[in-house]
Amino acid sequence: MKNETIFFQLFEHESSTYTYIIGDNKTKEAAIIDPVIETIERDLKLLKELELKLLYVLDTHVHADHITASGEIRKRTGAKTAISAIAGLDCADLLLEDGQELKLGNKIIKAITTPGHTNSCMSFYFEGRIFTGDTLLIRGSGRTDFQQGSNEKLYQSVHQKLFQLPNETQVYPAHDYGGFTSSTIGLEKKHNPRLGESKSIDDFKKIMSELKLSYPKKIEQALPANLKCGKI
Amino acid sequence: MKNETIFFQLFEHESSTYTYIIGDNKTKEAAIIDPVIETIERDLKLLKELELKLLYVLDTHVHADHITASGEIRKRTGAKTAISAIAGLDCADLLLEDGQELKLGNKIIKAITTPGHTNSCMSFYFEGRIFTGDTLLIRGSGRTDFQQGSNEKLYQSVHQKLFQLPNETQVYPAHDYGGFTSSTIGLEKKHNPRLGESKSIDDFKKIMSELKLSYPKKIEQALPANLKCGKI
Repeated sequence: MKNETIFFQLFEHESSTYTYIIGDNKTKEAAIIDPVIETIERDLKLLKELELKLLYVLDTHVHADHITASGEIRKRTGAKTAISAIAGLDCADLLLEDGQELKLGNKIIKAITTPGHTNSCMSFYFEGRIFTGDTLLIRGSGRTDFQQGSNEKLYQSVHQKLFQLPNETQVYPAHDYGGFTSSTIGLEKKHNPRLGESKSIDDFKKIMSELKLSYPKKIEQALPANLKCGKI
Repeated sequence: MKNETIFFQLFEHESSTYTYIIGDNKTKEAAIIDPVIETIERDLKLLKELELKLLYVLDTHVHADHITASGEIRKRTGAKTAISAIAGLDCADLLLEDGQELKLGNKIIKAITTPGHTNSCMSFYFEGRIFTGDTLLIRGSGRTDFQQGSNEKLYQSVHQKLFQLPNETQVYPAHDYGGFTSSTIGLEKKHNPRLGESKSIDDFKKIMSELKLSYPKKIEQALPANLKCGKI
């Protein structure tokens, strides 16, 4: 039986970023999530090999650790760039609202606002998979100490939105640093040491306040570029 | 709907090795493929979180680039270690023959001899996925210049065995160095630059003879250890 859904996960080693290609196998319509400028040639080659028609380039948020390939992919494929309306980027073709749906064939990508890591973070649901950006990481979470980060908002996004999805929903984050490639909502509810069901908002605040995180290496280059969809 | 099959892919950054956990969701019986000694704690923790009963530790071959965790996992879980009979390891519990089947619940792992990278390489088929070890890599292949490597055997293993699987079979190799996590038999037939259907055995030999590969960094430690199932 032919798979009806197209799904490929790709990794960029320098920033430990996951990029995803999702699509409908009947119509060959596809989207790419969180592409990185350093790996644009690899990703465009794969899209071509897969004979996909790229409709959307989605960013889960304005990244601070790498430069998005969204603007360049739009230029080279004609796909529409999309990001949360809250990011308010002039350069994006689509400014997505909470609950907004994008079609790939007869399948639907659902945009879900999940602020906390940044104010304009979105997750994308597609065919049993949730792409969580830097909101929910595998056994972790995004940091909340810059770009309007908020512990309250992140906790609420995860508990009131992501954890409402069925337990078997597969979780695909924007990053992983420990060699994990996927999780499930059920596993994160049970085993996420920051955000699991047994953790209160106060537990989460305490954990986040005790993290000793260094300033992101690339933020000075990445943020200004990403506010222009990756224009360097 | 609950997934009937358990599947997790894990990455070890130093040797760029993929480890896989596969299982049957009803009985919770599972196997781990190509575990690495450096990531044993991560993998055992995940097995515990998933509440799996580990029956088998499978190695696709005697690795030259990293030390297997198979012996240590056996010691800590009671799982049986298994490798190709051609490897002839005294330390392994099961010496697998071509076509041999191992059960996880009512699902079957099928061992397929695919020599070429080494003489004792095996691939494992499980529920629409083929774990190809170092035989077939994504848009590449294992090297053939040590451990009884053979261009002829590798080419035949891929063309006469792996490429006979349905095109939609998902390909999961033991390594990737470019950020790919999976492929399909159909994609490799069409786009593998060394082994695709348009390449003859002579094309393959020429390509392999022109690779300028450095001697594997860890071979002096890894091979003797792996001949004892990872005992250092």
